[in-house]
Amino acid sequence: MWNEEIETMPREDIYELQLKKLQSTVKRAFDKIPYYNKKYSEANVFPEDIETLEDIEKLPFLTKDDLRACYPFGMFAVDKKEIIEVHSSSGTTGKPVVSGYTQNDIDNWGEIVARGLTMMGLDSDDIIQNTHGYGLFTGGFGVHYGAHRLGATIIPISTGQTRRQVEIMADFGTTCLIFTPSYGIYLGEVAKEEGIDFDKLGLKAIGFGAEMWTAEMRDRIEETFKTKAYNIYGLTELMGPGVGIECSAQNGLHIAEDFFYPEIINPKTGETLAEGKHGELVLTNLERESMPIIRFRTKDLTALHYDTCKCGRTLARMERITGRSDDMIKVKGVAIFPSQIEKALLKVSNIEPHYQIIVTRPDIMDEIEIKVEASASLFSDDIKEMMAVKRKIGEYIQNETGIAVNVSLVAPKSIPRSTKGKIQRVIDKRNLH
Amino acid sequence: MWNEEIETMPREDIYELQLKKLQSTVKRAFDKIPYYNKKYSEANVFPEDIETLEDIEKLPFLTKDDLRACYPFGMFAVDKKEIIEVHSSSGTTGKPVVSGYTQNDIDNWGEIVARGLTMMGLDSDDIIQNTHGYGLFTGGFGVHYGAHRLGATIIPISTGQTRRQVEIMADFGTTCLIFTPSYGIYLGEVAKEEGIDFDKLGLKAIGFGAEMWTAEMRDRIEETFKTKAYNIYGLTELMGPGVGIECSAQNGLHIAEDFFYPEIINPKTGETLAEGKHGELVLTNLERESMPIIRFRTKDLTALHYDTCKCGRTLARMERITGRSDDMIKVKGVAIFPSQIEKALLKVSNIEPHYQIIVTRPDIMDEIEIKVEASASLFSDDIKEMMAVKRKIGEYIQNETGIAVNVSLVAPKSIPRSTKGKIQRVIDKRNLH
Repeated sequence: MWNEEIETMPREDIYELQLKKLQSTVKRAFDKIPYYNKKYSEANVFPEDIETLEDIEKLPFLTKDDLRACYPFGMFAVDKKEIIEVHSSSGTTGKPVVSGYTQNDIDNWGEIVARGLTMMGLDSDDIIQNTHGYGLFTGGFGVHYGAHRLGATIIPISTGQTRRQVEIMADFGTTCLIFTPSYGIYLGEVAKEEGIDFDKLGLKAIGFGAEMWTAEMRDRIEETFKTKAYNIYGLTELMGPGVGIECSAQNGLHIAEDFFYPEIINPKTGETLAEGKHGELVLTNLERESMPIIRFRTKDLTALHYDTCKCGRTLARMERITGRSDDMIKVKGVAIFPSQIEKALLKVSNIEPHYQIIVTRPDIMDEIEIKVEASASLFSDDIKEMMAVKRKIGEYIQNETGIAVNVSLVAPKSIPRSTKGKIQRVIDKRNLH
Repeated sequence: MWNEEIETMPREDIYELQLKKLQSTVKRAFDKIPYYNKKYSEANVFPEDIETLEDIEKLPFLTKDDLRACYPFGMFAVDKKEIIEVHSSSGTTGKPVVSGYTQNDIDNWGEIVARGLTMMGLDSDDIIQNTHGYGLFTGGFGVHYGAHRLGATIIPISTGQTRRQVEIMADFGTTCLIFTPSYGIYLGEVAKEEGIDFDKLGLKAIGFGAEMWTAEMRDRIEETFKTKAYNIYGLTELMGPGVGIECSAQNGLHIAEDFFYPEIINPKTGETLAEGKHGELVLTNLERESMPIIRFRTKDLTALHYDTCKCGRTLARMERITGRSDDMIKVKGVAIFPSQIEKALLKVSNIEPHYQIIVTRPDIMDEIEIKVEASASLFSDDIKEMMAVKRKIGEYIQNETGIAVNVSLVAPKSIPRSTKGKIQRVIDKRNLH
C-alpha cells in the first residue's frame, strides 16, 4: 500500500480525522469566501454548528449553479497569487466551472492518484501510457501527477494517433494503459489488427474512467488486454480523477476519505441515505487550500459501503456509477449538457430552438447526432443554404462542447412533443445501465 | 532576473562551468551508454581528451539516426526505474526519437523555462494561457513546468476550441499567451470577431515558438495583441522548449548555457564556425541525468552572439532560425519529414511511391497537400475506388504525422522529375525566409 496508515485506519479514527478536517474546512470557507458566508448565514448555519460529522447535513448543498455564480474566481479561498493551475469543466448555459489548485493541492492530487495506482498493483518500475486528453479537462493531468509521485514512467501520449499508440505500447514495454472504456475498446481492436499479442506484452493493469461503463465493457476490456481493469473516478470540481479508485478486489472504488467526505442522498428530497442505499453522490473537500467545495451534488448515482475490503483497506467503497440525476450525457469522455447545445444553437439564425440529442454506440465508439428543426423559410430554401447552416451549427457545437457531432436539419415541428408540448432532449441508445 | 548569478556570469566563468560539466557529461556518457562508448572508441576519442571546451570538436556529431539506432531506450544513462517521463518527436522512416527525463531533469526543465518566462517580464502573479498541445510533443509541458516553477498560474488549455480560448482569456484575465505564430494569428482574428479589446485586456507578454517565423509575423502578432512577443526555442531531443528564450531586448534568444553548450557548424563540412557566422546549430546537454545528448545536429540554421545583451545578461544569444539544413518542414507546429509520408504511402497498395508535399499558407493557417501518383490500373478504375484509396492515404499519414492533410491522387508519372529523374519532395510556398 502507498499509505498504509491512512488506507487501513480504523473507521472510528477516519471519522475523527474527517470531523477535524471538515470543521476547519467549513471555517475557512465561511471566513474566506463571501459566497459561503452569505449562503450559510442565510441558511442560519455557522461553522460552530459542526460538532459531529452528521452535522454536515445542516449545510446547504452546492450545485454547479453555485460554482457558476462564482465564475471565475469567486470560490477561491486564497489569493490568486497562490493559485498555480486552473482547470475547467465544459461550460453549460452561461459560464463554465473553474477549478483552481495551489502547489499543495497539486501535490495532494498526485498523492491520491499515486495511492490509487498502487492499489492497481503498480509501482515505480511501471510504464504508464496515459491516453486521457490533457488540457482544461483534468483526466490527463491527474494520472500524470500521480505517476510522477509514484516515480513510475509516464508516457503522456494523450488521445488519438491510435496506430502510434500501439507501436509505442509494444516498443516501450507499457505495463499500464489509462483510457476511457470506449477508446480502450477501439485501441484494442487496432492493436489486434496490428498483430499485438497481449499475452506477451505483459500489461499489469488498466485504469479506465471518465465515462459510464457496464460490467460487460469491463469484461471485454480485460479479455482483450489480458489483464485486470480498474475504474478511476473523479470530477474536476473537487480535484479531478482520483476521488475513488478500485483495488485488486474490484469490488467498488476506494474513496480517498482523508481528502473527500462522501454522502449519498435522495436526489429528489435531499435526504441522506444509509450505507448500501442507491442515490446521488455528494462530495466535500476535506483538505483543499485553493477552493474548498462543500456538499457538492455530483448528480452521479451510486451507493457507499463501509465494511473492510478484501484487500484490507478500510476506506469507504463506492459502486460503479449507474446513471445521472440530471440530463448530462458523457460522450467520448466529454460531459455534455443539453444547455450547451442550446447555447450554440442560439447563435445560429434560420433555425428553431427545437432540438434533440441522440447518442448511439453503433459499434464501440460513441456517436452523437443533433436533430434541429429548420425555420420554415430555410426548409423550403435551397440545399446549399441548408448545408451552410448545418456546417455552422456543427462548428458552434464543437466550439461549445469540444466534440464533433452529426447535425441533421429536420422540418419545423417534426421532432415529437409530449402531451405537454415538451421535447425529450436526450435519447441515449447506448444501453449503459 | 530569475537566477542573476548564472544569467550575468562573466563569460570566463561560464566557460569554466561549461568545461567542468562537459567533462563529466562525456565521462558519464562513455561509461554508462554502450552506444557512446563504441562510437567514441571507434573515433579514437576518450573522455580524458576533453581538456578545453574547444576539445569538444574532437567528438563525433550525433544525428537523429544515432538516436533512432538507440530506439527506444538505448540512450539512457540511468536505470529505467529512474525515468519518470518520456516524450517523443514524431517518427520518420523507421522509429521515432525518444526523450527521457528523471525527476531532476524535469526540475531543471522547469528552472530553465521559469528563467525564460522571467526574461519575458512575468512573475508569480501572472496568468499564462498555454495553447501549445500537451502530449508526446514537449511544447505544452515545457511551459507548464516552467510556470509551476515560477509560481504563476497556468491555464493548460492546449490548442483548439478557439472561441472558448477567447472567452477564457477575457474572463480569467490572462496576462500571457503561449502559441505557435500561425495559431496565434488565427486566435487574434477570432478574438477581434468576438469583440475583444486588447488595449483593455492587459496582456503583458506573448511567448511563441515551435514554428519558423518572420519579422513580419512578429509585427503582426504584437500589433494584434498590443504587447511584446518573445520567441521560445527548444527541441525534444535535448529537453524541449526553453533551450533559448528572448529577453526584453528582443535581440536573439538567450541560451541556458549552464544546461546547453551551443556550437555553429558548416552543415556541409562539419567545421565549427566563429561568432556571428550562420550555420547549423549543434547542441550538447551539459546536465542531463537521463539521456546526455552530445553534439546533436539540430539541422536548424542560425548564428550565435556572445557580447553582453542590453538586458545585462551575458548568456549567449542565438538568432531567429531562418531555415533547415535538411528537408524537414514544420506545419502547424508539427515537424514533418518526407520520409514519414513515404512510410505511410508504403502501407497503401494501388499507388506508386511517387509523391510531392506542397505546403501553403492561404491566409494565416498552414495547409499541406500530398500529391500521390496512382497506379495505372487504379487511375483507370472507378471513382469510388479512388476515393477509398485517397481516404486511406490520408488516414495513414495522419497516424504517422499527427496532422490532417489534403491528398490528391494524380496520374502516373504526372509529377515533374528533374533531369536526373528526381522529384522535388517538398514545395514550401509559405515564404518564411
